[in-house]
This record gives sequence, structure tokens and C-alpha cells, in this order.
Amino acid sequence: MSSGLAAIVNHQVRLAARPVGLPTAADWQFTEAPVAEPGVGGVVVKVLAISLDPAMRGWMNEGKSYIPPVGLGEVMRAGGVGAVVASSHPDFAVGDPVTGGTGVQEYWSATGEQLKRSGLAKIDLRLGSLTQWLNVLGMPGMTGYFGLIDIGLPKAGETVVVSGAAGAVGQTVGQLAKIKGCRVVGIAGGGAKCEWVVGELGFDACIDYKATAPPPSPAGAATWDAVREGLKQHCPAGVDIYFDNVGGEILDTVLTRINRGARIVICGAISQYNNTRAVQGPKNYLALLVNRARMEGLVVFDYAERYPQAVAELAAYLKDGRMKSREDVVEGGVAAFPATLTKLFTGENFGKLVLKIAA
Amino acid sequence: MSSGLAAIVNHQVRLAARPVGLPTAADWQFTEAPVAEPGVGGVVVKVLAISLDPAMRGWMNEGKSYIPPVGLGEVMRAGGVGAVVASSHPDFAVGDPVTGGTGVQEYWSATGEQLKRSGLAKIDLRLGSLTQWLNVLGMPGMTGYFGLIDIGLPKAGETVVVSGAAGAVGQTVGQLAKIKGCRVVGIAGGGAKCEWVVGELGFDACIDYKATAPPPSPAGAATWDAVREGLKQHCPAGVDIYFDNVGGEILDTVLTRINRGARIVICGAISQYNNTRAVQGPKNYLALLVNRARMEGLVVFDYAERYPQAVAELAAYLKDGRMKSREDVVEGGVAAFPATLTKLFTGENFGKLVLKIAA
Repeated sequence: MSSGLAAIVNHQVRLAARPVGLPTAADWQFTEAPVAEPGVGGVVVKVLAISLDPAMRGWMNEGKSYIPPVGLGEVMRAGGVGAVVASSHPDFAVGDPVTGGTGVQEYWSATGEQLKRSGLAKIDLRLGSLTQWLNVLGMPGMTGYFGLIDIGLPKAGETVVVSGAAGAVGQTVGQLAKIKGCRVVGIAGGGAKCEWVVGELGFDACIDYKATAPPPSPAGAATWDAVREGLKQHCPAGVDIYFDNVGGEILDTVLTRINRGARIVICGAISQYNNTRAVQGPKNYLALLVNRARMEGLVVFDYAERYPQAVAELAAYLKDGRMKSREDVVEGGVAAFPATLTKLFTGENFGKLVLKIAA
Repeated sequence: MSSGLAAIVNHQVRLAARPVGLPTAADWQFTEAPVAEPGVGGVVVKVLAISLDPAMRGWMNEGKSYIPPVGLGEVMRAGGVGAVVASSHPDFAVGDPVTGGTGVQEYWSATGEQLKRSGLAKIDLRLGSLTQWLNVLGMPGMTGYFGLIDIGLPKAGETVVVSGAAGAVGQTVGQLAKIKGCRVVGIAGGGAKCEWVVGELGFDACIDYKATAPPPSPAGAATWDAVREGLKQHCPAGVDIYFDNVGGEILDTVLTRINRGARIVICGAISQYNNTRAVQGPKNYLALLVNRARMEGLVVFDYAERYPQAVAELAAYLKDGRMKSREDVVEGGVAAFPATLTKLFTGENFGKLVLKIAA
């Protein structure tokens, strides 16, 4: 097979150094290479968009985790969507829209062996748009779905609180919990996100964790805590499920309001990922004892066999309008990756953060 | 009914102040009162021994918990064993051995109404001694049983780690886990406790958390951590269940060694109960995420309906020798209560700490 691929320049972003704190420009290296031929049983995918995820920060660290770290000098790991541009594998044809671990680059080439291990899958654009396949129908949606359903075990009438409510996982969790008959309270940063979560997604309430004490508040303003006050106001019956994407102070505050038998889903801790000191442990964890409650973590890959079931259910909600999605699509290709990643950690993104690589 | 009870002086220990940090003499008040008549449907129990429990420290604090705090001026709450000395209730006869919430006093008098709510129960001294009814057949044993079986979900071949291994809950948990076919590693303070846990109770190993670096250790002795090293050595296949009685640094260290799907039973946090600053939260709690693990609390009272089942099982193990118990019985009556309680928090007790009140 001669496809002329070698004539195409593949722009790539590689991990140059292990960041201390927030990643900086010096942690990245931009490289160019010809696109590799797929070889026997392989494919080449033209990457159209990649997903930017808080988990990326963890992949950049040395050390044992649920998957190996990205090696120094390797193309940065990323989930992406794209189109097959060359294939010698019977399951994939040129033109097929696909999703998989493309990395931060313009073309992803896989040999037959690499393809087998990659989890590359065709996607059906009638179920959702390309960017929705990185959001509600992609990893964040799967994480929200299995975290809420399998770990959170929601029952109609229960109160669900979700942090990072306007983010990729949070938006799915909250809307799904509403569909399951729960009262849903989001926590997000800023009035615009909160308004969208309530007005557009139909959450019962959303707490702006950045809010300051409402006037008149001469006394006590310094110790006023938007999350504490918001939970008091919006969760009068306590919290049955807390889906935690942020960790830190917010986790500690929610722990003070949990009900007996509460389930806390530990999905992430974005507030802690760029720490240069130790992670802040939940000092109120003994609320688990007092309330016979549970804190449990999940890694979405464990549910891979059930993705099709979750995709079908979520796609049906997208179709009937009960599930909406918002993606924050940044233009600029791979060169924009470092600056775009930073937006996640400063909370500048509004909706699922996606980097467009090509049209 | 005239029993002459009023002629008997009942010595009592009351909570005089809410302690800051470790309780001191000033937090207690000693009072005397005539023994109250039982009234219609009530009983009077002569208290023979009381249980000293880490949970007592929590009961002394103001604020919401799983049960209301002991009120200032009230007799200190305690579980005890004793003998019925007066009864106008058909279920209890004079001379019956009983267990219940007697408080720190020599006689416990209950009206019919108080008796109904008290959970007072007759005990069978053929199943275990009086002090064993405060240990393996009492609250600590019930806590260990339901915490391990219902929350820990042990499977044969798994590795169980239990802190406070020589304490009341720990000794039951470890022996029960051995009976269920697990590898069991204790954590305790001091060589004598560790030797007893392994030699007498049959744990596979016990880590002395107070141990210092073994010689020769010129370099690195300052950062040598007995628990970390002990877990590496004695849990080569990682930790499947951690039954935590202590919290703090030990919880954090065990979190670094948990396996995928591990269960952490939060039973207590004795290292933190006398803190004058905030509780130390587990900074390694994200190990729950990486390992898809669970941390869950329990309160033994929830299992009250199943106590008889657990007592029957544990008593059978006592009888066939697979379960041993050790009680650290302090003489001195109610006057010795304040000093005896302190032993719990300094770790001076060796086995279940019991205060003998009368012969």
C-alpha cells in the first residue's frame, strides 16, 4: 500500500519534562515527523479534535498510578476523534469516524499490534457530534455514567451534589441524576456557569464557590463560605451522593453535610493536581464513620465492556432533549495545546474542553 | 417494694467540663447519691465492671455525632456488666448477670421507660466471662465482627491489616480474619503487644509502629518508617482490607499499599481524638481512585438485631480455642476512671481496657 502518507508532516507535542506545579511551556517539545505507514493490519487516523482532561496532569507525573506515566520524550497521551485516512485492517475503512487514544498530534499511526491494544473504535455521528463523542458519549460521559450509576447508586428523591458541575463529567452526572429522579445541586466557579447549569441543564441549584459574602456583610465576611452556605440553603435534606471532581476544601465542606449511608464518588481532585506540596486530605473524613458513609474511587477503563450500553442510553437522552452538552472548543491545532491545558486548571473553560486539530 | 437500696451510696463520675485535648482531672466530678428505687417495670443493676473505649472521647465533645454528647453534669456514659439487685420487670430477676449502658457509677437504676430504651440484656456466663462480655462478646467484638464481615467483606487468601491490633476491636478482627482464611498483619505499639498478637493470637505478623530503624542505620534513620517497612515486608501481595482504628499517619501509610478493590473500614481514629487542631485527613486518599477502592465507616449500633448471631459465632470460637481474648483489668472502682481512661490514649493498656467497679 502506498498512500503518500510519508509526504505529510505530522506535528506532535511531546512531554519534555515532568512539571512541578502547573505545567509550563518548558515542559513541552514540538516535533515534526513524516506520517508512518500503517503496516499489516494497522491504520492511520487524521486527528480532528482532542480531549483535554484533568487526568492528563497525573499522566505527566513519575510513578505508579492506574496507567503508566507518559514517558519523557513521548507524544503526550490524549483521547481524540478523527477520520481513518489509511487502513489495512478489515474493521476500519478510509473515511470512518473513530475515537481512541490518538495523542496530541495531527496523525495517529498504529501497527496491527498497536491497534489491537488501542481501543480504537468507530463512532456513529448520528448519535452525537464529533465533540460530543469526546464529551457525553466519550470518556467524561462514561466516567459520569458509571461513577453515578455504579458507585453512587442513586435513588429517586435523593440529593446529589456534583462539583465541577459545568465541566465534562459534571454536566453528565447532574443531568443523569435528574433523569433518575434526584434533586441535583451543582458546584461551579462563577455566575455564568451556575446560571447555565440551572437554566439550561435543569439542575435544581448551583453553588458558585467563588462567590463572596452577600451585602450587607460587615461582620463574618472573612469566614463566609459560599459552599457551606449554599449547601445549607439548597440541600435542606442533606447530601446522599457527592460526586467529587475537585477535592480540597470543597470535599471537606460537603463532608459536613452528608446523610447516613451517603456515597462519595471520588472521580478526581483537580484542585490538588498542581500542588507542589502534599495533597490536602479530607480532614472531615470521620464523617464517613458518624454517617456510615462510603467514599469510593473509580477508573472508567474498568467499564469498557459496558460503554456501548451507556452510550446508547446517553445518546437516547441527547436525542429526546433530556441531555444537553456544551463543549468549549479551542482552535489553533497542536501548537495551542500547552496554553489550552492550563485553562482546565484555572477553571477558564466553560464546558468540556476540546482542542480542534483539523477541520 | 422496699429493698433498702436507698441506704446504699452510689458513687458516680460525671462530666464536669468539655476537655480540650487529653481529658484532665478538672473535666470530672465525683458525686454520691442514694441508689434510686427501680419503680414500676424498672431494675437496679450493681455494676461490676465497665468498658473503657476510645469512643468515650467523642462522647465528651459538644456537637452532632452518631449519638448525642454526654451532657455537662451527667453521669459519664459507659457500657458495663453487672448483676441485677432489684427488679420489677418480668424479664429480669435479682442475680441475673446483665450488660448495658450502665454509666460510670456503682449502681444503675432504670425506670420501666428507661429500661425499654436502654438495651439492657442478660448475658450467659457459660459463653464467656464477665470481662469477655465487655470485649469479644461485647461492643468491641460486635464492632470488629460487623466491620470486618459486612464492610470488609473478607475472602480467603486476602491480606487484612488491622491497627490497634492488641486492642479490643483489633484482637477480634485479626483472629476472625484468620478464621476466614485471610493473611493477617497487625499494627501495634511495642514489642510485647506485637509478640502476643503473633504468638498468642496467631496473626501472621505484627508491625511495631514505635520501632526505630534497625542497626546499622547511620543514614536514613530519620526518615525510616516502621509501618512502611513492615507493610513492604509482611504484605508482599498488597493490602486488600485495612481495618483502621487509629487514623493519622498510619492510615496514610497503609493507603500507599492497598490493592485494587481494597476495602478500608473506618472504625475509629484514636490518634486524632485528643487533637486540639483539626483532624489529620488522609492525604493519600486518592489511592482510593487509582485502586478503585472504598473507605467506609460503621457504627455498631446499626447491627443490634444481629448481635445474637455474632455472639453465638464468636462464643463458639472462644470455646474451641480459635478465638482468645485479653482484658487489661484495672482495679480501683469509679475513682480510678479518669486515670484509667488516659491509658487508652497513651496506648498503655494491653488488651481490652476494663475498670473493675465491684467484686
